[in-house]
Amino acid sequence: MSDTDNFLDDSLITTETTAPDSMAADQPMGGISDRAATRQARELSVGERPGTLTVREDSLAPRLFLISYDEQFFEEKEYTSYDEMLAFFHAHPQQRHWIDVRGYGDLPLMERLMQDFDLHPLQMEDVLGDYQRAKVEQFDDNRLFMVSRMTEFTTLLEIDDDQLSIFTGPNYIISFQDDYDDCLDTVRIRIRSGFSKIKQKPVLYLAYALTDVVLDHYYPTMAAIGDYIETLEERIFKGRADRRVLNRILHIKKDIVRFRRLVYPEREKIAEILRMPDDVIPEEMKLYFKDCYDHAIQAMDLAESYRESVSSLVDLYLSDQSNRMNEVMKVLTIISSIFIPLSFVVGLYGMNFQREAPDGTINRLNMPELYQPWGYPVLLSILVVIVAFQLIYFYRKGWLSNR
Amino acid sequence: MSDTDNFLDDSLITTETTAPDSMAADQPMGGISDRAATRQARELSVGERPGTLTVREDSLAPRLFLISYDEQFFEEKEYTSYDEMLAFFHAHPQQRHWIDVRGYGDLPLMERLMQDFDLHPLQMEDVLGDYQRAKVEQFDDNRLFMVSRMTEFTTLLEIDDDQLSIFTGPNYIISFQDDYDDCLDTVRIRIRSGFSKIKQKPVLYLAYALTDVVLDHYYPTMAAIGDYIETLEERIFKGRADRRVLNRILHIKKDIVRFRRLVYPEREKIAEILRMPDDVIPEEMKLYFKDCYDHAIQAMDLAESYRESVSSLVDLYLSDQSNRMNEVMKVLTIISSIFIPLSFVVGLYGMNFQREAPDGTINRLNMPELYQPWGYPVLLSILVVIVAFQLIYFYRKGWLSNR
Amino acid sequence: MSDTDNFLDDSLITTETTAPDSMAADQPMGGISDRAATRQARELSVGERPGTLTVREDSLAPRLFLISYDEQFFEEKEYTSYDEMLAFFHAHPQQRHWIDVRGYGDLPLMERLMQDFDLHPLQMEDVLGDYQRAKVEQFDDNRLFMVSRMTEFTTLLEIDDDQLSIFTGPNYIISFQDDYDDCLDTVRIRIRSGFSKIKQKPVLYLAYALTDVVLDHYYPTMAAIGDYIETLEERIFKGRADRRVLNRILHIKKDIVRFRRLVYPEREKIAEILRMPDDVIPEEMKLYFKDCYDHAIQAMDLAESYRESVSSLVDLYLSDQSNRMNEVMKVLTIISSIFIPLSFVVGLYGMNFQREAPDGTINRLNMPELYQPWGYPVLLSILVVIVAFQLIYFYRKGWLSNR
Amino acid sequence: MSDTDNFLDDSLITTETTAPDSMAADQPMGGISDRAATRQARELSVGERPGTLTVREDSLAPRLFLISYDEQFFEEKEYTSYDEMLAFFHAHPQQRHWIDVRGYGDLPLMERLMQDFDLHPLQMEDVLGDYQRAKVEQFDDNRLFMVSRMTEFTTLLEIDDDQLSIFTGPNYIISFQDDYDDCLDTVRIRIRSGFSKIKQKPVLYLAYALTDVVLDHYYPTMAAIGDYIETLEERIFKGRADRRVLNRILHIKKDIVRFRRLVYPEREKIAEILRMPDDVIPEEMKLYFKDCYDHAIQAMDLAESYRESVSSLVDLYLSDQSNRMNEVMKVLTIISSIFIPLSFVVGLYGMNFQREAPDGTINRLNMPELYQPWGYPVLLSILVVIVAFQLIYFYRKGWLSNR
Amino acid sequence: MSDTDNFLDDSLITTETTAPDSMAADQPMGGISDRAATRQARELSVGERPGTLTVREDSLAPRLFLISYDEQFFEEKEYTSYDEMLAFFHAHPQQRHWIDVRGYGDLPLMERLMQDFDLHPLQMEDVLGDYQRAKVEQFDDNRLFMVSRMTEFTTLLEIDDDQLSIFTGPNYIISFQDDYDDCLDTVRIRIRSGFSKIKQKPVLYLAYALTDVVLDHYYPTMAAIGDYIETLEERIFKGRADRRVLNRILHIKKDIVRFRRLVYPEREKIAEILRMPDDVIPEEMKLYFKDCYDHAIQAMDLAESYRESVSSLVDLYLSDQSNRMNEVMKVLTIISSIFIPLSFVVGLYGMNFQREAPDGTINRLNMPELYQPWGYPVLLSILVVIVAFQLIYFYRKGWLSNR
Ligand SMILES: [Mg+2]
Ligand SMILES: [Mg+2]
Ligand SMILES: [Mg+2]
Ligand SMILES: [Mg+2]
Ligand SMILES: [Mg+2]
Ligand SMILES: [Mg+2]
Ligand SMILES: [Mg+2]
Ligand SMILES: [Mg+2]
Ligand SMILES: [Mg+2]
Ligand SMILES: [Mg+2]
Ligand SMILES: [Mg+2]
Ligand SMILES: [Mg+2]
Ligand SMILES: [Mg+2]
Ligand SMILES: [Mg+2]
Ligand SMILES: [Mg+2]
Ligand SMILES: [Mg+2]
Ligand SMILES: [Mg+2]
Ligand SMILES: [Mg+2]
Ligand SMILES: [Mg+2]
Ligand SMILES: [Mg+2]
Ligand SMILES: [Mg+2]
Ligand SMILES: [Mg+2]
Ligand SMILES: [Mg+2]
Ligand SMILES: [Mg+2]
Ligand SMILES: [Mg+2]
Ligand SMILES: [Mg+2]
Ligand SMILES: [Mg+2]
Ligand SMILES: [Mg+2]
Ligand SMILES: [Mg+2]
Ligand SMILES: [Mg+2]
Ligand SMILES: [Mg+2]
Repeated sequence: MSDTDNFLDDSLITTETTAPDSMAADQPMGGISDRAATRQARELSVGERPGTLTVREDSLAPRLFLISYDEQFFEEKEYTSYDEMLAFFHAHPQQRHWIDVRGYGDLPLMERLMQDFDLHPLQMEDVLGDYQRAKVEQFDDNRLFMVSRMTEFTTLLEIDDDQLSIFTGPNYIISFQDDYDDCLDTVRIRIRSGFSKIKQKPVLYLAYALTDVVLDHYYPTMAAIGDYIETLEERIFKGRADRRVLNRILHIKKDIVRFRRLVYPEREKIAEILRMPDDVIPEEMKLYFKDCYDHAIQAMDLAESYRESVSSLVDLYLSDQSNRMNEVMKVLTIISSIFIPLSFVVGLYGMNFQREAPDGTINRLNMPELYQPWGYPVLLSILVVIVAFQLIYFYRKGWLSNR
Repeated sequence: MSDTDNFLDDSLITTETTAPDSMAADQPMGGISDRAATRQARELSVGERPGTLTVREDSLAPRLFLISYDEQFFEEKEYTSYDEMLAFFHAHPQQRHWIDVRGYGDLPLMERLMQDFDLHPLQMEDVLGDYQRAKVEQFDDNRLFMVSRMTEFTTLLEIDDDQLSIFTGPNYIISFQDDYDDCLDTVRIRIRSGFSKIKQKPVLYLAYALTDVVLDHYYPTMAAIGDYIETLEERIFKGRADRRVLNRILHIKKDIVRFRRLVYPEREKIAEILRMPDDVIPEEMKLYFKDCYDHAIQAMDLAESYRESVSSLVDLYLSDQSNRMNEVMKVLTIISSIFIPLSFVVGLYGMNFQREAPDGTINRLNMPELYQPWGYPVLLSILVVIVAFQLIYFYRKGWLSNR
Repeated sequence: MSDTDNFLDDSLITTETTAPDSMAADQPMGGISDRAATRQARELSVGERPGTLTVREDSLAPRLFLISYDEQFFEEKEYTSYDEMLAFFHAHPQQRHWIDVRGYGDLPLMERLMQDFDLHPLQMEDVLGDYQRAKVEQFDDNRLFMVSRMTEFTTLLEIDDDQLSIFTGPNYIISFQDDYDDCLDTVRIRIRSGFSKIKQKPVLYLAYALTDVVLDHYYPTMAAIGDYIETLEERIFKGRADRRVLNRILHIKKDIVRFRRLVYPEREKIAEILRMPDDVIPEEMKLYFKDCYDHAIQAMDLAESYRESVSSLVDLYLSDQSNRMNEVMKVLTIISSIFIPLSFVVGLYGMNFQREAPDGTINRLNMPELYQPWGYPVLLSILVVIVAFQLIYFYRKGWLSNR
Repeated sequence: MSDTDNFLDDSLITTETTAPDSMAADQPMGGISDRAATRQARELSVGERPGTLTVREDSLAPRLFLISYDEQFFEEKEYTSYDEMLAFFHAHPQQRHWIDVRGYGDLPLMERLMQDFDLHPLQMEDVLGDYQRAKVEQFDDNRLFMVSRMTEFTTLLEIDDDQLSIFTGPNYIISFQDDYDDCLDTVRIRIRSGFSKIKQKPVLYLAYALTDVVLDHYYPTMAAIGDYIETLEERIFKGRADRRVLNRILHIKKDIVRFRRLVYPEREKIAEILRMPDDVIPEEMKLYFKDCYDHAIQAMDLAESYRESVSSLVDLYLSDQSNRMNEVMKVLTIISSIFIPLSFVVGLYGMNFQREAPDGTINRLNMPELYQPWGYPVLLSILVVIVAFQLIYFYRKGWLSNR
Repeated sequence: MSDTDNFLDDSLITTETTAPDSMAADQPMGGISDRAATRQARELSVGERPGTLTVREDSLAPRLFLISYDEQFFEEKEYTSYDEMLAFFHAHPQQRHWIDVRGYGDLPLMERLMQDFDLHPLQMEDVLGDYQRAKVEQFDDNRLFMVSRMTEFTTLLEIDDDQLSIFTGPNYIISFQDDYDDCLDTVRIRIRSGFSKIKQKPVLYLAYALTDVVLDHYYPTMAAIGDYIETLEERIFKGRADRRVLNRILHIKKDIVRFRRLVYPEREKIAEILRMPDDVIPEEMKLYFKDCYDHAIQAMDLAESYRESVSSLVDLYLSDQSNRMNEVMKVLTIISSIFIPLSFVVGLYGMNFQREAPDGTINRLNMPELYQPWGYPVLLSILVVIVAFQLIYFYRKGWLSNR
């Protein structure tokens, strides 16, 4: 069994599940119904005062990372104490800082962060809710609140998305996310390196770099989906497509559409950034965001392209299903058409018409064939001829080949 | 029989019907035709003078609630006399008031309310008609007339929507709805509580809070639909999907599309509020409505996501139906292909070709097999071999497994 | 045979046809092809000088009605002489007038009307052509030319639409339509009544009232369609859906789409009226047109909802068709699977293998079963057991129930 | 064979082909692939200098017509010499002229026309290319270059479209087309007539009249398509729809979509004209173009309506195909279900169980039925009863009627 | 085997693959999954510093071509040394230059080009990434960065697209592409020729000419697709369409949709150019770009037209598949319906009802037919009559013809 086969194996999928947000693990047959959406819809705190902060029960305990830098300076540390981190932060007003919060599972800490960095409760609610579409909001004159959605094609064969929330300040940015792992390590590595452009530029550039890296990650997500579609296509072609394959096709189709819906607001967000006045987004930064904009459109094009492919797969599957029925019917038809007439013929000569009537007269017309010396061989020959003609007919129709 | 099964059981559905507006109770098989729409279309008073107030025959008698508050003050009461309520209202010009009217079944009272609070007959017609899309109208310079639609996923497995009409005034809001129960209790509880933000803010904030809570309720509605879709999907997977399941799928699809059409004008309404001048909607309030706007878009995204899931369910159902046909055909083909040839063979040896012609000559070629000492056992063995070959062939084709 | 059955009965339909514009009467099987569109397309006078007035051959002779009124005055009369009507009209310059022309079949009269009331030949061409989408045109500074389309769900089970053309003047409106019957009687009754708002307002209000009543009539049209869809759905559910039902479904689908295309320009028309300057449409009138606008959107929503329902009906019909095939196949498979093996077994014991060879030796192995004292009863028992097993198998598969 | 049959007859189609641009003649089976598009795409002179004039090899030799007129004057003539025509043209500067060029097959003449009338090479390239969508271009301050597409539903049962290019000048218009025949004769006749409005107005009115007549011709084209769709629908209903009918349906669907794509830019063109400043298009002329605009929208509505009808025809065809399969299966099932059990029964009594064992003992249990005096008649009666029950069952199922 | 057959032959396809970017060579069965998209998505350098230049491993070594010209001067040469080329370039500041770079496989050279011609790293990243949609960017006041995508319908029966990146400068343009071959030779030939318009105009005209030629090449690409679609259609009509044909149809459908997505941004690009101020794009040049704009729309129309055709092909294929099933079923039904009843009849007379009971009494009712002198011939005649009736029935149903 090849690799691609393995990865469609359901037992495998259920056991390999180790990712923390594996909402699909309990989903033995693929799952067309949008359980992620359902879960999201259920978790919203209905009717609460807007701006009420709540933290999901299964949230991870927050980890606090601080990266501080300027062109000469660099320090990176994980803090276990928020106060300690804040002290360091305030002690270095000349440096630029990235406060990197991962995990939301400590409500008082979240509230302190909100107050210490002048975040609006509605914004903080968006952060902790973890279901906000990509958006940008300008606040306090020239600060930005940016939401991105980080995507990943998981071992569960579906697209997982996590929220990255970024607030900018005069000399810092704060980022929030609910997982410890993310796709931002490349940025961290770039800052650590000696000559990073990030170090030379204002913090807005760092916010941009994070946004860019999230967008860049859309491509490997899409590439993984592309590989997966290819595997599904091969399955159909090898004739090993059963209902589960259709299920998977429909599932990934739903995910691709969802992906497109994730990227679309990302594009809108960047377009809004590009329309912001120059004192909020300097002209030079716009060049960079314009590049992001191109990438967002490109990602949507890719998603569109895959959606088309997956729709074709559905067509192909259905045609294949119909094809198999055709094949079954052909076997039935060939066998029946050959043997049913033969059965008639042999049944004919199984009749008991009597040569001799009870009164002793001879009925010469009653099945005289039965008494011919060559009767049986001739009949056998006739049967062979009938079969031969039928086979030729079916061959001509193309029913004997595996079309 | 499990829980999910129960909830698809039709008898159950018809008996559990207790909701006052149960237009689906008389709908034994699900109902793809949009009876709610038909009823709505029929009830409109065609050709009457615009602004003519009419009350549906089955309207509930109005109940009047008044919640009066300011930062120090709070009083909540249900009034049986409108005049009494009005007196209290006029006696407290410094407080803010929520006049909460539930049920329309008293036309003179409705007309008094209209006159006493300077509502336009066309607006009042919109209130009582109970079929107005979400909208906002600015009138008398800075008063607002806002319509929302409250949704619920009922025990009848469909989305029910009720209209909430809100008029703002300088120190009061009046809300109208035709049911006694609603989804606004969380707001009432928040006002009752000591330190509600609602008490500290102008009445517009209360109007916002109500709008927000209606929007928040879209999520549990959607979550219930999500669960329902999942149940339907399981049905199909367990192979227990009959025509009624298709019917339900098509029904819920229609409802999801309708839900999306309910939310869309809600989004437009909020967008229009966000475009209103600052003296009507203060800048600070816009922050709150912007949050609503995000939620409305999110709800539409959810609906879109479910629509996709339901479309996939239709595909799956149809493929499943075709699959079952396939299975039936395979059984027929296997049985026929095995036994029809066998029947031919045994028919062959049931022929009456005679070894002895009437004239006594021996026709040695006429079925000599019948006289062989091992004739019958050999034939039986041949039959077994034929069957074995066929079974191998079908096994190789995969027709013996339940693909 | 119930009522709903009757109304799907074709013979009935063809005999009940009494409406003057019954283009569907000669349409024995429902008619998917858009004959109304074809007729319309054919009747256009191709290449004639624009503004050339032509009157369809089957046009009704015009009937002239004049309703004159002000707050104190009211007079309503059908005139057989145009000059007489004009004399009365000119003799009452202080009153407001509704000149109500029904039927176009008198070209010179139409031309006199055009000249006497300063209508543009292109406008008059639009009136007589009877196929103009809803629109509004401003002319002579502040006069309006408004076209509406009045709809009706006919006894032929399709949507019929007629054109209502209205020209406004300083103290009069002229309306044109090609039928004697219309949906405007409610307005006439309202004017006749003592205290009509229409009498108190400028003629523009009357033009509005007519537009409003046409819009209001979209709802009963839609409600009738809703009932019809429900009947079709029941047909399918009772298993009595044949090709004619599909035809009707596709036909009504086409009509609903056409209805939506009728309403859409109506909405655009009202939106254009709402954008007109206040000296053409006073602010107060806009309130009324805004109400119309809501209704137009509501009607489009209804049409959209029905379109969705009808699409689902097509799905349901096709699935039902496939379902019936399934049922047929199951019967075939069950019967064949049971009896074909049995036939083999009895064929087996119909073979003529001889216990005694021609040379007199005994072939003990040739079908010794035939000579057992219990041979036949045992065989019958075996056959019963085979059948029992098969029935259990089919029962388990669920093929014996009517799923 | 009726008339409508004839016109679907393929042999007929291939022989009747006389139109000069009959690209479909060599298209024996209808042709879903868009050969017109392919031909068009192939003919473009790839990579040539923009503005290079080329003439298709099969172009007709140009014929030159000049119609000169003013309110008193009228002269119409076909010229064989361009110079002669030009001389006449220059000799009558007070008159208005329509230079009517039909056929492009003389490149030097085309180039002279371009230079003499100050046309831009890119414009002339658009003229000769013969594949330009409808458009309008303003050049030399107030001259117009207008392209229309003239349509026709040909005897080949498809929409043929030809380009009409019009240039306006101060006192003349030049029109180009590649066929000798066109749909503009009604305009020519109108000019010839004594009191034509065309004679009284500036040349722009003539350009308008030509545009209008092209638009007017969309209606008979659509009407012919409507008739054709009706014929196809009848075919299906009479059960005479084979694959060729599907092919034709798909073909005409493609053509209708193409038609809509032809009309859409026409509408855009007129909308652009309506937006032009008053010194290019006087206010009075706009009234006329507004009328055209209505017609263009109306034509698009018609096309949309037909597209809907044709889509329904596809559904109907597919359902019909499935229906026929159903019928075939029912025949098979009825025959098999009746006779297979009967065959079993008669096979049963064809078994050779012996009453007398070889040792002479009597096996009384071995098929005693065979020795009963009423055995055979009783069995025959049983068979009849079985058949009767089955027929009742099938009748109840409705399988015996032709549903 | 004809030519068109050959070109659908898979073996052929795999061996003919010589093009350098033959991503489809390893794609034995057509490939619905979008491998090009997947490859593209995978190759993006995720998370790298924006503006980081990377070169794909399989990039061709760059070849440098310089065409220098003015109205008198012309020199064209391929340089192996960049410095040499640069020297020549700087030595001729009065001439206009086209620096034509083909192949990216030399990163330091790419970086030198970037620096020497003041290109932005983000732009250079777009060039080397080779997956940028068509776009135009204005930089350094009046320089342009234009990206086009050159298309080709390859021998692998799919659309291949390559990126052409053009930077303009005061007296030069630089173009980049990753293949040695392209579709620009017609432009090169035009420059070489004595009287090219290109030589007389500023370099922007050359940039335009390249863009135009790329657009012109969309037409042969489309024409090839049109031919291919026609071949596929013929396949289906000749009844030789198997699953591979469906695969190809779905594949080309995907490609056509992709093509449309390629052209759309091209149109947007030109629209943006047309909106640029006159000092960047002189009025005269806009005339030329307007012509391009027409062509881009025309190309999109063509693609739309083909998409429609291909969708129809899918419908046709599926109907054809269903048709073949129908045919199979008809053969089965005819054979079974004829012979199964016959088999019953002959089985009937194969029964062993005994004329003589064991006790010697004569059972006259037991199958007296068997003893009639004409029994057998009469039975045979009856069988013939039954068959005849059935054949007539089937003929009437039209099942004997090949509908
Ligand atoms: Mg909330
Ligand atoms: Mg998360
Ligand atoms: Mg997650
Ligand atoms: Mg994660
Ligand atoms: Mg990027
Ligand atoms: Mg870029
Ligand atoms: Mg009304
Ligand atoms: Mg209600
Ligand atoms: Mg309700
Ligand atoms: Mg309720
Ligand atoms: Mg909310
Ligand atoms: Mg929020
Ligand atoms: Mg006309
Ligand atoms: Mg009518
Ligand atoms: Mg009419
Ligand atoms: Mg009528
Ligand atoms: Mg109304
Ligand atoms: Mg209203
Ligand atoms: Mg060109
Ligand atoms: Mg032509
Ligand atoms: Mg032509
Ligand atoms: Mg022509
Ligand atoms: Mg016209
Ligand atoms: Mg008109
Ligand atoms: Mg990057
Ligand atoms: Mg390339
Ligand atoms: Mg390439
Ligand atoms: Mg290439
Ligand atoms: Mg070009
Ligand atoms: Mg052009
Ligand atoms: Mg379909």
